[in-house]
Amino acid sequence: MNRPSPPRTEPSLERGALATLAEQLAAFYAERIRAGALAVGARLPSVREAARRHGLAPSTVVAAYDQLQAQGVVEARQQRGFYVRTTASGTAASPQRDPPQRSAPPHDVAALMRGMFEHPGGKSPSPGTGTLPPDWLDLPLLHGAMRRALADDARDPASLRYGDPAGDARLRSALSLRLGQLGIAAGAQQIVTTAGATQALDIVSRLLLAPGDTVLVDEPGWAVEFARLTQMGMTLAPVPRGAAGPDLAVMRRLLESNAKPRAYITVSVLHNPTGATLPLAAAHELLKLAAAHDLTIVEDDTYAWLAPAQAPRLAALDQLQRTIYISGFSKILTPSWRVGFVAASPAWVERIIDRKLLTTLTTPALPERALAITLEQGTLRRHADRVVLRLDAARQRCVRLAEEAGFAFAAPPQGLFGWIDTGVDVDRLAADLHAQGWLLAPGSLFHAVPRPSTLMRINFATSQEARLWRALREACEALHHTVDQGGCAAGQSRVPSVHYKR
Amino acid sequence: MNRPSPPRTEPSLERGALATLAEQLAAFYAERIRAGALAVGARLPSVREAARRHGLAPSTVVAAYDQLQAQGVVEARQQRGFYVRTTASGTAASPQRDPPQRSAPPHDVAALMRGMFEHPGGKSPSPGTGTLPPDWLDLPLLHGAMRRALADDARDPASLRYGDPAGDARLRSALSLRLGQLGIAAGAQQIVTTAGATQALDIVSRLLLAPGDTVLVDEPGWAVEFARLTQMGMTLAPVPRGAAGPDLAVMRRLLESNAKPRAYITVSVLHNPTGATLPLAAAHELLKLAAAHDLTIVEDDTYAWLAPAQAPRLAALDQLQRTIYISGFSKILTPSWRVGFVAASPAWVERIIDRKLLTTLTTPALPERALAITLEQGTLRRHADRVVLRLDAARQRCVRLAEEAGFAFAAPPQGLFGWIDTGVDVDRLAADLHAQGWLLAPGSLFHAVPRPSTLMRINFATSQEARLWRALREACEALHHTVDQGGCAAGQSRVPSVHYKR
Repeated sequence: MNRPSPPRTEPSLERGALATLAEQLAAFYAERIRAGALAVGARLPSVREAARRHGLAPSTVVAAYDQLQAQGVVEARQQRGFYVRTTASGTAASPQRDPPQRSAPPHDVAALMRGMFEHPGGKSPSPGTGTLPPDWLDLPLLHGAMRRALADDARDPASLRYGDPAGDARLRSALSLRLGQLGIAAGAQQIVTTAGATQALDIVSRLLLAPGDTVLVDEPGWAVEFARLTQMGMTLAPVPRGAAGPDLAVMRRLLESNAKPRAYITVSVLHNPTGATLPLAAAHELLKLAAAHDLTIVEDDTYAWLAPAQAPRLAALDQLQRTIYISGFSKILTPSWRVGFVAASPAWVERIIDRKLLTTLTTPALPERALAITLEQGTLRRHADRVVLRLDAARQRCVRLAEEAGFAFAAPPQGLFGWIDTGVDVDRLAADLHAQGWLLAPGSLFHAVPRPSTLMRINFATSQEARLWRALREACEALHHTVDQGGCAAGQSRVPSVHYKR
Repeated sequence: MNRPSPPRTEPSLERGALATLAEQLAAFYAERIRAGALAVGARLPSVREAARRHGLAPSTVVAAYDQLQAQGVVEARQQRGFYVRTTASGTAASPQRDPPQRSAPPHDVAALMRGMFEHPGGKSPSPGTGTLPPDWLDLPLLHGAMRRALADDARDPASLRYGDPAGDARLRSALSLRLGQLGIAAGAQQIVTTAGATQALDIVSRLLLAPGDTVLVDEPGWAVEFARLTQMGMTLAPVPRGAAGPDLAVMRRLLESNAKPRAYITVSVLHNPTGATLPLAAAHELLKLAAAHDLTIVEDDTYAWLAPAQAPRLAALDQLQRTIYISGFSKILTPSWRVGFVAASPAWVERIIDRKLLTTLTTPALPERALAITLEQGTLRRHADRVVLRLDAARQRCVRLAEEAGFAFAAPPQGLFGWIDTGVDVDRLAADLHAQGWLLAPGSLFHAVPRPSTLMRINFATSQEARLWRALREACEALHHTVDQGGCAAGQSRVPSVHYKR
């Protein structure tokens, strides 16, 4: 996309590419080591070989290896090169990150987001998109509810005023019932509606944090969240997030550091991009740690309707004591209504309403009323049940296609997203696939500090075509021929051992 | 409203009351002097008398008078008291405000705003509200357009996706035509829709300004705007705004100061609260000054549809060179749709879209499509013509009632709002009237630095009841009996001479 140059020097979405080439290369090898593709004791390519492979000056490679050595990830052996020293996940690549450094937003967030909003004609699926495809949504359900809300309005002249600052009262009552089903006791007066979960995150972030504050985020995590926080002047403190939950040792060290993080923003259930759900015991430990350090947790439950009701929400454990709960309906009903909400303790709610008033005054009443109707009538519940069944089938098919094409999952496949190791630099893979008409979501975008990655996020609902997986395999093999370190997992035995295998 | 105490010390809407009593008293007298109620050479009440009147300690009065003396507004004459030294508007009360000081938001913005969103039952009009009453709006027009937009959607599966990040394409085309009628050449690709004009102001403010930056604002001006900017960490630099436009001498001094203001946010047409429209020559001079200091102007044209098309918009003079134009439909169609927009140069537009994506992703498509229909079919234009005629009649009636009740207008009555001098401390007047069920918008709320005022904003559409004016007169007379300095204009000859008289 041809973008005019910005009129003043202000952090923009494109600024993320500021990490030096050496830093990027160091991060690339750190990631390979963490993923297990380079085991303890393995030798890194020679400086000359690495320079040739990556098209860099030897001095850049030397600088990168020096950084890895300084981080304790590799060690130099006299006259023999650099060897992997540790694979301790989450610490190998970033032992020096305490306190964390200010990071720039991922450099291709804008491209990914704009891609998300393009309406591709033709046949190409978009494995990188973040929502259900339109043909999975229930147009008659949506339109019926909207028509009924409109008919209600026609009888009520109050519908011509600004809505209630907290949001439509009927919707908030219905949401209170829904939260009760998730084990979260929140009265309607503890709920504030927003223009999608995104505005809820924006409002709560602005309320909790001031520029310069440090905020804990999941690593990997959602690029748009990182970009927003960075643009607000926050310092991101990434906490490695695996199937067992956030790395609490890293979190504790960050909490005890001078950075004094004020908040932790996390997708606890069906985490984006890994699909992982926080285990109950990890949720319990996390809340104890948060209490010990007076940390506020912002729980982003965007994928709520795709998860079982009994999936443990942090807000269900601590009953909104130090958790602020956010959710929305873009991943289940439609992204076009833009309805999200916050549930919080009464003390926070008043401040959230004030902030909402300052940023958009109120939210549009009509979609909120329509949403209330889908909740009251149970049509949303039944729609969600159908979507979950269909998604289960799509996921099974994708996993089979992926494995047949030689790909391994880096996390157990769950929910909407799969987290796949391609074995090659996924930015190059994404560029190759983009040339063929497919939008990928490369793993490099999901890091708080942008760096190369071999991982990518796929949307199970939009990645069911066999020809997508053929194209991926072929592109990987082509890249593999030019890079012997790593390469595509297809047709070789070097599938990283730490990966999930079905 | 019973509000829980906030969980952490962070600037809140209530923080504005932090000005000391002495500062408030000094500001009160400065305002009286500026309004002409205390002429040059007039003697201020004795310290003992002022202390008795205001129920303050004599030491507080001494501190207030010292502040006024330090500001050059009054002078002490040995053994004889304090005398008014100057009435030079806009400079008398604030000659020391260069660079400007960080100010707290007006302390009752929350109350005013919450009052705006209450749906009063019963008969009381709300002279303090900022919108047209619901019975002035055209429910069949609104519902017809919404139903038609819904029918369009039912045929278009793309309606189930996130909308275009820039906003509905049909709406942007229709807005481009409308802007052309206002003399502003802006292609559809230069327009970005937002969740009301308020979100547009929020996004543009965040894009143009960083915490600590100084921003020029109209004084008086819109309290919510002041509160938002202050909460974002901006420093407000108030520029006195009269019928002749902003005080360019003050603006020039601020631009040449170390504060280096980056932007000027202004309602150029039918200014809130005075109703004044920027004269053409003043617009021209303002733009020259802005060019000389590389100042960006944010033109808030919220009342666009109540003003003649030929009212000079800054954006029409400079064609969006250094003006960013914002408008919405809450003051003409309905506040409940929450549709606003920004028009800007192509370079800014891309950055505005990126920021919109980070804060709410997209905006709801349905009301945007419905709004496009009202523009395309001319129904909005015809509705606006009817509203303007009705408002003219309401304004004439209000002016007659106000003058019969002894009130004078501090600015020529135009548009939706009247700016009236009550001659008494309007916060006390507002409290008395609130006890009788009326919400007033006291002038104290419209100052960037909160201070007592004798002025109030009335909504012509909601202030047509004779009993409102009787109640206002009686409350003024009651206050007048307790405060001989100033008092209600009714039944006395001391109507300030600077005021507009029909």
